[in-house]
Amino acid sequence: MNTHRHRRFAKSPLPVHLVRRYLEPGPVVLVTSAHGGATNIMTLGWHTVMEFTPSLVGCMISAGNHSFDLIRRSGGCVINLPPASLIDAVVGIGNTSGAAIDKFRTFGLTPTSSTEIEAPAIAECFASIECRISDDRLVDSHNFFVFEVVAAHVATLRRRPATLHYTGDGVFMISGRRIDKSALFDPRML
Amino acid sequence: MNTHRHRRFAKSPLPVHLVRRYLEPGPVVLVTSAHGGATNIMTLGWHTVMEFTPSLVGCMISAGNHSFDLIRRSGGCVINLPPASLIDAVVGIGNTSGAAIDKFRTFGLTPTSSTEIEAPAIAECFASIECRISDDRLVDSHNFFVFEVVAAHVATLRRRPATLHYTGDGVFMISGRRIDKSALFDPRML
Repeated sequence: MNTHRHRRFAKSPLPVHLVRRYLEPGPVVLVTSAHGGATNIMTLGWHTVMEFTPSLVGCMISAGNHSFDLIRRSGGCVINLPPASLIDAVVGIGNTSGAAIDKFRTFGLTPTSSTEIEAPAIAECFASIECRISDDRLVDSHNFFVFEVVAAHVATLRRRPATLHYTGDGVFMISGRRIDKSALFDPRML
Repeated sequence: MNTHRHRRFAKSPLPVHLVRRYLEPGPVVLVTSAHGGATNIMTLGWHTVMEFTPSLVGCMISAGNHSFDLIRRSGGCVINLPPASLIDAVVGIGNTSGAAIDKFRTFGLTPTSSTEIEAPAIAECFASIECRISDDRLVDSHNFFVFEVVAAHVATLRRRPATLHYTGDGVFMISGRRIDKSALFDPRML
């Protein structure tokens, strides 16, 4: 379906308390999972940073998704940051089920080994955040997982790629310019 | 401190299941709270949509904030969407404590009555999302509130204002252009 070859990113380790730089702006992410030989990718927009140390991230992953079982059984996943150029793959991944197709193959994405987690990362994403389930008290009632980030790898780039932000109704917002207001901050808040 | 007069927005009701259009892209929001005659505003970037119906939103509100007690005691808050033009107020609100100053007065913002919640909305914000605590099981351990959206009001505008997205380190991303990919979606996913 998708034979376009996308850029692959080489990545270096990032201290886990710094993942907020990537997640807090609210991008759509691709969550990879694996268990018992099966792998999958899902598109996710419902996530939030929850703590710096330990580095915690909360994700709402519907029980109707094929990924839900892979994550719950394996105890982990990888949160991957797609550049905006992957928008068609992001939509396609969100509109298909891993129970029916191999999403890596279908969307031309390359799995790469993670360091702490069974699930692979995605070479065509510029950040990979490896997560283990930390608290599952809201999973049965709300499909809400609290993950601890146990490793993170990001591409070292002069300019960070634009990201995708979903607004519903099939419409995305593409991240815009950056503005540095650090001079206005109380240094203890930085 | 801030005598600049910002634009005030007239707002109309929005069905509560549609608040994802405003929150899912990940903007910085201003959370208003009130209890026993005291009111406050805090800047928040750690939130996520959790469900459409009931309309649920999760927020990580540190127990160190003056707002935490007001929200816990009153049982609610209002999530307000500031346009990017309010960036200096957003930073100032995030770097001061409502225990020491009246943030509405200090930052030149206008409280307006909410329909379902004790806390006021902010006239200079273009969307106001009224919330009641729905699940507090993760509050003691993670300062994480699950809120149910009980009312929402948004400005009817030809063009939605740009929003602020925080990346840490005093740097914000300003929302960019929108791109409609609805033609690629399975209609059941819209």
